[in-house]
Amino acid sequence: MSERKGLIIVHTGNGKGKTTAALGLALRALGCGFRVAMIQFIKGKWKYGERESAPRIGLDLIPMGQGFTWDSKDIEVDKAMMRAAWEECKARTHSGNYDLLIFDEINYVLGYGYLPIEEVVEFLKGKPPSVHVVLTGRNAKPEIIELADLVTEMKEIKHPFKQGIKAQRGIEF
Amino acid sequence: MSERKGLIIVHTGNGKGKTTAALGLALRALGCGFRVAMIQFIKGKWKYGERESAPRIGLDLIPMGQGFTWDSKDIEVDKAMMRAAWEECKARTHSGNYDLLIFDEINYVLGYGYLPIEEVVEFLKGKPPSVHVVLTGRNAKPEIIELADLVTEMKEIKHPFKQGIKAQRGIEF
Repeated sequence: MSERKGLIIVHTGNGKGKTTAALGLALRALGCGFRVAMIQFIKGKWKYGERESAPRIGLDLIPMGQGFTWDSKDIEVDKAMMRAAWEECKARTHSGNYDLLIFDEINYVLGYGYLPIEEVVEFLKGKPPSVHVVLTGRNAKPEIIELADLVTEMKEIKHPFKQGIKAQRGIEF
Repeated sequence: MSERKGLIIVHTGNGKGKTTAALGLALRALGCGFRVAMIQFIKGKWKYGERESAPRIGLDLIPMGQGFTWDSKDIEVDKAMMRAAWEECKARTHSGNYDLLIFDEINYVLGYGYLPIEEVVEFLKGKPPSVHVVLTGRNAKPEIIELADLVTEMKEIKHPFKQGIKAQRGIEF
């Protein structure tokens, strides 16, 4: 019936704007009547601003990875946390409740081997055809780039912290 | 009183996500209680989705450049249109009504010489210190990069059109 082809979109690179552009994409998609969820792999990556704005536009923000720190003493606890976030992604994608899902910082998590890349690739290949998926995070794996329809690298050219300017509320948090 | 330092932020490069990341930034800033306006230099660059969502979060979208085509027979008409958009940017920035202003596609316009770069640089140097400004568009001028606090290049790695996939509603328009 539908001509919709669910895209696999990747935002990667060392610059700012990976999650921010995914939020902009959510804003646009919601304006078109899409149902959108954003699943957070890493605690603390989301800012006050988006948490306040999300309900106003009907964006489902699903925080996972609470307490994940990267310097945990117990790597198995962290792996279990990433596994739980991934199971959440899979369940939401197949729920029929969403047109667009954002797996926020999953590239980062895959880069550190917290989830098996083969499993994520297989899942993406078998996802419902009309569902769009956005994968954000630096160091996207070649397997993910290969599979994706649209890949953008956000590259840092200049950063205010390096010029001694403090992080600004409303912009960076 | 305030410790706020209004940043000059640039989103440039040949990839997607320049305007989209600015929209995400607007979403975050509005969630923090900022007042945000986005001024459009080029007609048709905005999509249905953001026009529908903007009022829900209180984002002022100001369309200028109506009828601007890049292949106009009368370059003076186009220049006058870009001048009007620029005057709108200046007036809004100094109005005291906004904390964050997005000059959408201004880099593109500057790149083609439709506005004098010196004038834009002088204006940015003299802007109200607490006001944040985002300049989007490919081919940002070196003078703008030099002045900016935060510069991100959105680089195209892979694009669906080149693989024969049609533009998708809700994602690309």
